[in-house]
Amino acid sequence: MKRIAILISGRGSNMEALLKAHAAGELQAEPVLVISNRAAAPGLDTARAHGVRTEVASFKDREAGEQRVLDLTRECAVELLVLAGFMRVLSPTLIEAFPNRIINIHPSLLPSFPGLHAQRQALEYGVRFSGCTTHFVNAGVDTGPIIRQSVVPVEPDDTEETLSARILEQEHATLVHSVNDWAADRLSVEGRHVRVSAG
Amino acid sequence: MKRIAILISGRGSNMEALLKAHAAGELQAEPVLVISNRAAAPGLDTARAHGVRTEVASFKDREAGEQRVLDLTRECAVELLVLAGFMRVLSPTLIEAFPNRIINIHPSLLPSFPGLHAQRQALEYGVRFSGCTTHFVNAGVDTGPIIRQSVVPVEPDDTEETLSARILEQEHATLVHSVNDWAADRLSVEGRHVRVSAG
Repeated sequence: MKRIAILISGRGSNMEALLKAHAAGELQAEPVLVISNRAAAPGLDTARAHGVRTEVASFKDREAGEQRVLDLTRECAVELLVLAGFMRVLSPTLIEAFPNRIINIHPSLLPSFPGLHAQRQALEYGVRFSGCTTHFVNAGVDTGPIIRQSVVPVEPDDTEETLSARILEQEHATLVHSVNDWAADRLSVEGRHVRVSAG
Repeated sequence: MKRIAILISGRGSNMEALLKAHAAGELQAEPVLVISNRAAAPGLDTARAHGVRTEVASFKDREAGEQRVLDLTRECAVELLVLAGFMRVLSPTLIEAFPNRIINIHPSLLPSFPGLHAQRQALEYGVRFSGCTTHFVNAGVDTGPIIRQSVVPVEPDDTEETLSARILEQEHATLVHSVNDWAADRLSVEGRHVRVSAG
């Protein structure tokens, strides 16, 4: 089974979705490492409760942080990085070390609302639908080739909290499906297009 | 019944959707005038076939073109302008003459892919869903307050033609619904948010 690392910064709700799917036998990859850039991230406890090795890699010095990620992932023979609410931008060095092998999940229908507070941006713009996107990470912010998207309606009385909750539910399934697509070799990337074979 | 004018530049397929809905008793507004910026627009014939007055307003000189639109719409006591594939950007003068009374339809899920060739932009980006958006026109290009959106999937083998056809089907219904929302006074605009009451 292919070995994956999950990078988090906080609660790690999407990380937890992956770990639960793994525990249920529904993930076709093995989460072997969870790295947080914050030692206080609550997700580290969750990962340990699932028996997954956890590490902290401070990104106050990004170069040192990324070197630590590289060292740890090599040590653990990790083939895929999953960014699950990881709040730091990666440098080309790390991205090139994992070409089309870093998956990010973003809470909007990209290319709408990249960057921080995507759900708030969507509410402020006044869109009728939003959702989430998984994509391979490239040098831009939330601009990489799209793997999957899921759509949710924006309701008239939505707050940032209610919309975020509705999207998050889709994020969990979308991320699990995307990792499984990758693990089963169903994804091929041509330019900025990701083809998903029936596999 | 509220009187509306439709501005076109070409085939006017969305115009035709409005005229057909009107003929079927399904439009709660009366199309009394169709203006094209191009004398050769095939939609002019379609409009005449529906018994609607047609006029040409050249926008080679935008100021003169807009003045002609203003004169004609005054003469016809028009309360709402609908841009149905109208390929010219309006100046603040015309927009301020019809505050929140100009509706545009755009073939993407705005704010993604504004401007020309929205369907091609969507295919080139590699999104999994696209759609259409109706919005009130403001000074920006496809940036005004959103009235309605409809979502369609993007299929792996889509061409610009197949995706455009799938979106266009949604455009027709979305535009008719939006004009009916306006005609029935169901729309209230606060900042960039359009609230649609059950009405």
